[in-house]
Parts: sequence; C-alpha cells; structure tokens
Amino acid sequence: MILTVTPNVALDITYRVDRLTPGSSHRVREVRERAGGKGVNVASVLHALGHDTMIFGFVGSALAGAVTSDLARAGLANQLITIEGPTRRSVAVVDAGNGAATLFNEPGPRVPRASWDALEALLGARLAEATGLVVSGSLPPGAGDDACARLVRLAAAHRVTVLVDTTGAVLLEAAAAGADIVKPNSSELLDSTGLADVTAAATALRRRGAKAVVASHGAAGMTAFTVGGSWRAAPPTRVVGNPTGAGDAAAAALIAGAVAGAPWPDRLRDAVALSAAAVLQPTAGSVDLDHYRRFVPQIVVEEHHAPGLDR
Amino acid sequence: MILTVTPNVALDITYRVDRLTPGSSHRVREVRERAGGKGVNVASVLHALGHDTMIFGFVGSALAGAVTSDLARAGLANQLITIEGPTRRSVAVVDAGNGAATLFNEPGPRVPRASWDALEALLGARLAEATGLVVSGSLPPGAGDDACARLVRLAAAHRVTVLVDTTGAVLLEAAAAGADIVKPNSSELLDSTGLADVTAAATALRRRGAKAVVASHGAAGMTAFTVGGSWRAAPPTRVVGNPTGAGDAAAAALIAGAVAGAPWPDRLRDAVALSAAAVLQPTAGSVDLDHYRRFVPQIVVEEHHAPGLDR
Repeated sequence: MILTVTPNVALDITYRVDRLTPGSSHRVREVRERAGGKGVNVASVLHALGHDTMIFGFVGSALAGAVTSDLARAGLANQLITIEGPTRRSVAVVDAGNGAATLFNEPGPRVPRASWDALEALLGARLAEATGLVVSGSLPPGAGDDACARLVRLAAAHRVTVLVDTTGAVLLEAAAAGADIVKPNSSELLDSTGLADVTAAATALRRRGAKAVVASHGAAGMTAFTVGGSWRAAPPTRVVGNPTGAGDAAAAALIAGAVAGAPWPDRLRDAVALSAAAVLQPTAGSVDLDHYRRFVPQIVVEEHHAPGLDR
Repeated sequence: MILTVTPNVALDITYRVDRLTPGSSHRVREVRERAGGKGVNVASVLHALGHDTMIFGFVGSALAGAVTSDLARAGLANQLITIEGPTRRSVAVVDAGNGAATLFNEPGPRVPRASWDALEALLGARLAEATGLVVSGSLPPGAGDDACARLVRLAAAHRVTVLVDTTGAVLLEAAAAGADIVKPNSSELLDSTGLADVTAAATALRRRGAKAVVASHGAAGMTAFTVGGSWRAAPPTRVVGNPTGAGDAAAAALIAGAVAGAPWPDRLRDAVALSAAAVLQPTAGSVDLDHYRRFVPQIVVEEHHAPGLDR
C-alpha cells in the first residue's frame, strides 16, 4: 500500500465561462467540483494504475462532506482528519474561447498542533503495512517548516520509501531529513536553494541529505539526479493540454517505480509518459492509461552529464 | 413586516488578490463569505433601517448551513426552503491594485414545482401580517416566466404592496400581474421591452399593468414613472465605490417609502441616497446610515418631462 499525505486538501472547483474579462460579471456555464490537493491527485493516479492507496491529510469541517463524498465516489480510501474552519477551495476559471485556466487558491485553515500529532499517529499505524509514502503540496497556514521532515523521519523509521513534492524551506528540511526522492519543478528547485543552475541546486539538495532529486521542466520532461547517475527524459513532441496535475502523475510514477525497485531510467520514462497522459485529461488526478501506454515507448531517456556534477 | 423573496439565494464569496492576470495562478490573500442574493441584500438593508423583515427563497442543501448561519449572525429572520443540490455561489475576485471586481455567478440548482408551491404556502401564511413584499433577482433554472407574477398576484390578494426587481420575460409577466413597483435598471428595462428609449419602455411596462416603474441609471440616479407623475433623482456628485448591492438598497428604500405612504419624490430621494451609501460599503447588503443621512439633503429631485410620456 502506498500512502499519500495532503497537508492542505482542497475542494477543486472548475468554472467554464464564455470569455474571461477582468472587471466584468460572468455567467458560469458549467460547474465541476472534486476533491483536490496534490496528494489526493497522486493517490488518484496510483489507484488508476492498480495500486492500493490511502489518503491522509486535513480537511476543514465546513466542506468536509463535499470532499469525502467525492473521494468515496472515486473509490479512494482515506483517513482525513477534520479540522475547524472552511476547507481550502481552489477555483479554476476556464475561458471557453482560448481554453486558458485562471486559478484562485485559498490559503486554507490553520492546522492546530494536536491535529499534526493525530496525523503522525494515524500514519504511524499504517506505515507498518505500507511500501511507499508521498507527501505533496503546500503546507497549511501555521505549520512549521519541519512538518514535512517529521513525516520523512517517521517513514524512514518504518523503512518506507518516501517521496516529497513541496518547495521552499519545507523542501530543504525534507531533504535534510533524508527523503528518498524530492520532486520540485525546476523553478521551485532554484527558488528553494537560491542557486541559478538546476544541476548545482539538485547537487545541493543531495548534499543536504536527499537520496535523489527529480527536477521537472514542464513540457520539456524531467531530470533525475541520483547516487547511481543522472538521467534526463523528454517526450518526443510537446503535449498540449491541461498541465495541472502533470507533476502529481509524475510523483505517482516515481513512487510506484521506487517501491518496485525499477531502474532509474525506467522510473523516469514512466514519470514522463504518465505526466504527458495527465496533460491530455481535463482534470488533475486523472490519466488515460491507453495514452500512457502509447507514450512510454516514445520517451527519450539519456544520461545527463553536467560539469561539476557530484555523482 | 416586509417580506423579501430571493428565488436564487447565493453564497457570496469575495477573494482579494494582488493583481488579476488571466491565465495565471493567484494566491487568495483574503476570503470573505456571506449569504447573498438580491432579496437577502434588500432584507439586510431594511433590517439596518429598523424594519421587521423575513427572508424567503430557496437554498441548496450542500451549502445551506453556510447561508443560514450567516443570516443568523446578521440577525436576519428567514424561512428558506432547502432544495436538493448545491447552493449557488457568486465569486467576486477583487484586484487589490485597481479595486476592480470580477464576478463569477453560478447558475444555481433547479427548483422543483413542489418547492415553488411550498414557497407560496409559506408566503401566504405570512402575508396577512405583512405590509410589503419584495421579489428580487434572477430565477433559478427551470422556473417558469410566471413564477414572479404568481407571487405578485398572491401579494395583491392580501392587499400587500409588492416591488419586483427582475428582468426579461419574468419582468414583463410581473408587470402584467399588476406589480405596484417594478425596478429594473435602464439597460434591463430596454432589453426586456425591446425598446430603445427608457421613457417609452417604462410607459410600455405601465400599460402592461405595472403601477409604477423605477429605472435606475447607475451613478446617474434613477427615474420614477408613476400614475401621479414622473421624477428623476440624482446624487450631487458621483459616488465611487462598490456598485454591487446599490440597486438592492434602492429597492429597500422604495418598498419602505411605499408601505409608509411617502410621496414619490421623497421615496426617490431616499432610494438614491441609500443607494449612494451602499456604494461606499465593501459588501452588498450593508449601508452606513450616517452616510445615508448625509446624502439625503444633497439629492436633487426634479419632475421628469418627456415627449409622449403617458402620465
């Protein structure tokens, strides 16, 4: 079983409008609503791939029902902890004219210390039977920078492979706690380390303690920096669609490959193929497995050589 | 007691963002949430003026709690009918840079025939002790064009003064049912009648059966077309602020003046002053009574003469 933690679970709301014009009033043509947040999307993709999953995290009391009933509809097992306050909403306004999405992300409610303790207790009880753990997404207001690192250490104590997809000081602390894989995108990687070069930044995270760093480059693919070497994988052509959730599909592939003990080039190929398949879907957290299987043989994986790379 | 009907009650959500950029992702700095919909705003202003009010309408089961707890917090009595489906949300994104608001209005859930019958039964039971009724705002999906007219006839049967603020075919039917006051804005009035001139359009609505027509012209004030004459009222200077809810404040003043039997010029003066006071408030449905009292003596009311006006 692969566990995912979403510290800031969201209710993803998608509005379709004829044309987005700032300063004016819009009639919403179509409303879609589903449980969201990066860890929820990762679990959803893992579920589609046939893995047993369990979603952990915090949900605000006000909209908890909307989130949990959507998870139930999707068949996604969860042990969410309800906290006081409104569930974070993430509103995506899609312009029917040009297809562009404009996002509005609420901050979400503050998670009290006792609820973090409860999360660690729930996770601890499940880690004995787990093979992997993914901690994904931003932290809710008031969380310490070590909130993610604590979960990394908890997983390590249970010898469970852990992947972290976050940014900033929280990412640095998770790396220092010895995360097996950290998966920022290139700009998050540079921002978090304050360095101007992806290879140098990945090396810095590995020196801090991360066992592997996978940097994603949007439509250009991703690069893995590991103790056994570095590889870069790219799709043969640019896949056009909805990039929301592409990183979550990559995280799903990477944790699945890690728990299966697959070689890094294969993990990376799967991550890029699944990511491209996610881009073709209208909503985050879903993939078309036929697209994924069609993409796999098309992904180009090459060894990555960079001056000064610390292998 | 003045009753208000909001056929399409909303949860008004306001997001403050640094700068609205279509196609990009925004961190919401501040989230505000309150019960909304035009009739709710009218009741809120009437309540601030010291009137006894009761809110009627339909609320979706999914977010009913958020709506009713906000009404309770504001001290607004209500007899909302809960229907299946999500409460309509209206999201206003306010750009902190230029103060401009961009609105996204959900359609709201479909109201079954039985719920309309229930509304008429509830209203009927209260009309005996009521002096005024306001029916405000759009109709939910699936409602017949006569939904508003039926409420007008119900009020007339109880000899209760009724004001209708709506548009299109629903407005035409409400006028034909003999509404005491209809209060469209100028462009709604022109669109609904298909005429190019406000005076001609107001005359057409009165010929259909409306006893008085008040057309609002945004910051330029409003014109009343009545059996006893026509008047135009304007604020002395342009009041800059949030125009959402200004029309609802005007409706509150007009029904209050009607039930008090005030002369039309006074009703119009109050409506323009209260409207201007509403513009100075950040949220719809609230007015600062000091602003209102300060504006009243400044409003210029003049008799309105127009060629061909059917007095």
